[in-house]
Amino acid sequence: MGHVGATVAHYLVSGGFVDELVLFDTNEAKVNSDALDLRDAMANLPTHTNLYVNDWDQVADCDVVISALGKSKLVDTPDHDRFAEFKFTRTQVPVVGQKLKDHGFHGNLVVITNPCDVITAMYQKATGLPKHQVLGTGTLLDSARMRATVGETLHVDSRSVVGYNLGEHGNSQFTAWSTVRVFGKPLLEYLKQHPEVKADLAAMEERARQGGYTVYKGKKYTNYGVATAAVRLTVTMLNDALTELPVSNYRPELGTYLSYPAVVGRHGVVQQLQLDLTAEEQAKLEQTATYIKERLAKEEARQAEED
Amino acid sequence: MGHVGATVAHYLVSGGFVDELVLFDTNEAKVNSDALDLRDAMANLPTHTNLYVNDWDQVADCDVVISALGKSKLVDTPDHDRFAEFKFTRTQVPVVGQKLKDHGFHGNLVVITNPCDVITAMYQKATGLPKHQVLGTGTLLDSARMRATVGETLHVDSRSVVGYNLGEHGNSQFTAWSTVRVFGKPLLEYLKQHPEVKADLAAMEERARQGGYTVYKGKKYTNYGVATAAVRLTVTMLNDALTELPVSNYRPELGTYLSYPAVVGRHGVVQQLQLDLTAEEQAKLEQTATYIKERLAKEEARQAEED
Amino acid sequence: MGHVGATVAHYLVSGGFVDELVLFDTNEAKVNSDALDLRDAMANLPTHTNLYVNDWDQVADCDVVISALGKSKLVDTPDHDRFAEFKFTRTQVPVVGQKLKDHGFHGNLVVITNPCDVITAMYQKATGLPKHQVLGTGTLLDSARMRATVGETLHVDSRSVVGYNLGEHGNSQFTAWSTVRVFGKPLLEYLKQHPEVKADLAAMEERARQGGYTVYKGKKYTNYGVATAAVRLTVTMLNDALTELPVSNYRPELGTYLSYPAVVGRHGVVQQLQLDLTAEEQAKLEQTATYIKERLAKEEARQAEED
Amino acid sequence: MGHVGATVAHYLVSGGFVDELVLFDTNEAKVNSDALDLRDAMANLPTHTNLYVNDWDQVADCDVVISALGKSKLVDTPDHDRFAEFKFTRTQVPVVGQKLKDHGFHGNLVVITNPCDVITAMYQKATGLPKHQVLGTGTLLDSARMRATVGETLHVDSRSVVGYNLGEHGNSQFTAWSTVRVFGKPLLEYLKQHPEVKADLAAMEERARQGGYTVYKGKKYTNYGVATAAVRLTVTMLNDALTELPVSNYRPELGTYLSYPAVVGRHGVVQQLQLDLTAEEQAKLEQTATYIKERLAKEEARQAEED
Repeated sequence: MGHVGATVAHYLVSGGFVDELVLFDTNEAKVNSDALDLRDAMANLPTHTNLYVNDWDQVADCDVVISALGKSKLVDTPDHDRFAEFKFTRTQVPVVGQKLKDHGFHGNLVVITNPCDVITAMYQKATGLPKHQVLGTGTLLDSARMRATVGETLHVDSRSVVGYNLGEHGNSQFTAWSTVRVFGKPLLEYLKQHPEVKADLAAMEERARQGGYTVYKGKKYTNYGVATAAVRLTVTMLNDALTELPVSNYRPELGTYLSYPAVVGRHGVVQQLQLDLTAEEQAKLEQTATYIKERLAKEEARQAEED
Repeated sequence: MGHVGATVAHYLVSGGFVDELVLFDTNEAKVNSDALDLRDAMANLPTHTNLYVNDWDQVADCDVVISALGKSKLVDTPDHDRFAEFKFTRTQVPVVGQKLKDHGFHGNLVVITNPCDVITAMYQKATGLPKHQVLGTGTLLDSARMRATVGETLHVDSRSVVGYNLGEHGNSQFTAWSTVRVFGKPLLEYLKQHPEVKADLAAMEERARQGGYTVYKGKKYTNYGVATAAVRLTVTMLNDALTELPVSNYRPELGTYLSYPAVVGRHGVVQQLQLDLTAEEQAKLEQTATYIKERLAKEEARQAEED
Repeated sequence: MGHVGATVAHYLVSGGFVDELVLFDTNEAKVNSDALDLRDAMANLPTHTNLYVNDWDQVADCDVVISALGKSKLVDTPDHDRFAEFKFTRTQVPVVGQKLKDHGFHGNLVVITNPCDVITAMYQKATGLPKHQVLGTGTLLDSARMRATVGETLHVDSRSVVGYNLGEHGNSQFTAWSTVRVFGKPLLEYLKQHPEVKADLAAMEERARQGGYTVYKGKKYTNYGVATAAVRLTVTMLNDALTELPVSNYRPELGTYLSYPAVVGRHGVVQQLQLDLTAEEQAKLEQTATYIKERLAKEEARQAEED
Repeated sequence: MGHVGATVAHYLVSGGFVDELVLFDTNEAKVNSDALDLRDAMANLPTHTNLYVNDWDQVADCDVVISALGKSKLVDTPDHDRFAEFKFTRTQVPVVGQKLKDHGFHGNLVVITNPCDVITAMYQKATGLPKHQVLGTGTLLDSARMRATVGETLHVDSRSVVGYNLGEHGNSQFTAWSTVRVFGKPLLEYLKQHPEVKADLAAMEERARQGGYTVYKGKKYTNYGVATAAVRLTVTMLNDALTELPVSNYRPELGTYLSYPAVVGRHGVVQQLQLDLTAEEQAKLEQTATYIKERLAKEEARQAEED
């Protein structure tokens, strides 16, 4: 129930998306305060949500658990690396994962906690859930940022832009430009046909990648974009909507969790897409996969040493 | 665009309630950061909102302006008085009010800024708008808190409880118990018929009055309850829904703004209710009116002296 | 999937209220046509609903079943009696009820089929479900019509009017004027305070009672009002909202199903209200109860004879 | 306020999409009946809509007018041609168009009335509105049907299929297969990569084209799919969402209204797309354009003769 978790909870309650919601936080005062505040909101809302606080016994019946634990203050570093939060989150995730397991949770797990891909892998291990039921919001948000940036540059609505940022929800991610289309047309072709448009691909890619930090700089946290992505992923699961989303999911051929479009429904990932990436993009994908795997391996080695 | 303003903006965008939204804050970095974050959210939303930042030229065409300016840190005082924020807000409101006037705003003004009733009066004066177009969220929130408290005590859903907290959105407010009904039955009668229910009226009243501080204590601000009340009031205006709401509106017979139920529509207050209060409640109403008037007079005297 | 059933289905799909929806009709062509039409709609909707047709095997997992079977043509009689449809519905309900039982349905049953109260009783018997899980929409609609009529007469929004039509969803129903309030004030008192308002209670009562026929006359069926009432009742159950609604529920002290406010949640009726009716209203309530019981007894006798 | 108009009205009211709604029908009994029925619905809805009947004076202030006039019975012919309705609609459209003009309507006009493209052209002429403000729902629905058909054939959700049916909202339309993509991949390529999928393009195209008649056959009208398309187009205008939609708009290079993707916002069509069709598709586009122009010319000749 930090900035992101509380925003997720408020959006779920105000949108009437769920019938039952359990809020968790080790800071009892904070989580009770948010629960009261949401209860105060509900009296002026048309929809009803049953609200509970720190009630682990309900976990066995939950369809979806969303992990938004984190410490946004740690991110305030010069290099803007989401691994800055890892110092805190790596200690919490095994504990929470074990608790979910102990309380019989067997639904889908949506991971917002950063560094998203490594944490998603750690949660999957800690909970013992099937890999297709543990997903990270990953570049669902970064792809939205890229689409918004392209849209702004080309003066078209971002919903007329499709395409993906792939890989790590972090600095090693990249925009797969071969997947980006404007009004159904490949972006590169569109730009050829519209020489009047000044579009610097590298600058747009950088802007999407740095989008989180741009938001962060102004308020020392980010919440609306990522909370909306997490709720969209959650509702896709609850509705069994079978929507294709670029989220962090386990790709066996790369041996890691990373963001790559997958079809999501009630049972988590029900199909994995196979994009026709260019050779250059494929190389970038492998680089980002390697980076995530190395960070995870390092953490696992560290933990083994500690034990 | 503090805690409350940003939550109002997010709820308006995520709920698809408005087509155009202009965000204002003197902290350019913060407001731009929130605008970007909301833009990132929109790519994962089904509805579209045109978003602008600090664009005063649009004010002339706005149907509703919501003032949520404040400084929640100031509230952290032992006596929990919403006037603690006045030190800051009294300096800002005349400036913002004048700017609204200069830019030709002639719609409805919804005031969340505390101390709510005095500030609403100050805004009406500064903007020169007709009194029925300037309203404070007032005890719309406190009444919701009272209803939630009564509901919890009686083990019934808060939506089966009706009734009002009247007067100042502050410590001099009171619950008009004669207006409170449970399942359509006067609460006092209901309690007689259900002697097994242990309900301490004074304690429930105190809990509703202190509800804001209870929330505040746990997180050093309150946002979801009050933002939901403000959006409900705003949407009631936009839809011309003619709903009866306990909001801060000018009562000529009391000579002040205070919370008392009024019928709200596109043109602001379109009808003022006349409750059948008990003599004791009427006395309390006059006391809270006097309190608000004195605080306003004091402020006006102070300003006159300064000039 | 007649006029009402199809409108219920469309509203459920367009509002995104349910994840799974099974449509039933013995007219295969009609129900498949509606399913296709709803599928065509879904491609332009933001929410997803899994849709099935005539799949009885899913009934065991349904949270709520809504019965809207009927034959609106039969209602076209001079005396405007909802029993006109009984000729058809009394033959269908035992069959459908038995099928629900055979397929293991154990959720809540919402009955729109007319004559609503007798049919609700017949469904409860046929399915063997606990009485609190079988409910008729009853006067939830007639009460809405009464509130709209009062609102129109008094020039106030219908949402500022509360109160109930009680008893049969048919000609023996009555408005319990002692429960009707305007802006929280008893209507009778309100009228005394506003002698300028010309309000004929009997005429308003008659207009609410005949509301269905007024709508019927213009288009030979009614659908939007009753479908909205049925969906509201259904969503109240799905959300466990514990809302107080005037629906047809079994009152042991009267020995029959009839409309009387009850608190509805996930498990159907969770609490029955006890209104403070006047002696005259209580007498009317007993008359309408007697009427419903006699019609049901007559039908049961007829069936016994046939066997 | 036939089957389609009434469904549009109900969806607008139940979804809370508009603040003001004026219903029009020459059958006073029917339209008043629907208005009453919608009023009865509203008492159980969280949102409010001001409702008016046959009030032409309000037309000058309307942002959007939706024409759904028609006679579905006429469509019941062996050759299933939407021109079957033309016998009726060609007499009504000049009258309604003139009335809109006389009452100062200057907003956007959304045309559902069939034959959609010819009628849209006739409305534009009759109202004298700029061409970009008069649009037909056209193949927005047929494209949805095509996407649903492709999705079903490939066992993927229809929202993972993009692409367009172009041309006449009638029998001369065609699926522009070069625009159809599954999970972002051209359908033709996808099928090559998935030889196990049995997909007959001609059969799928025919099924989408005949989709309306399939629905029609089962219930003698279609309403949910087309009403949802019309509301989506309307809300896109009201929200200024700048969404790209395949609707009937005037293409100068073809000299006619026909369905071709355009970017729609508050001011109607704000940008026209330029697809890279194959030579074969371009030929089909010209054929369907010629067909529409000939039908329109024939009608204009007939009218001139009559005068």
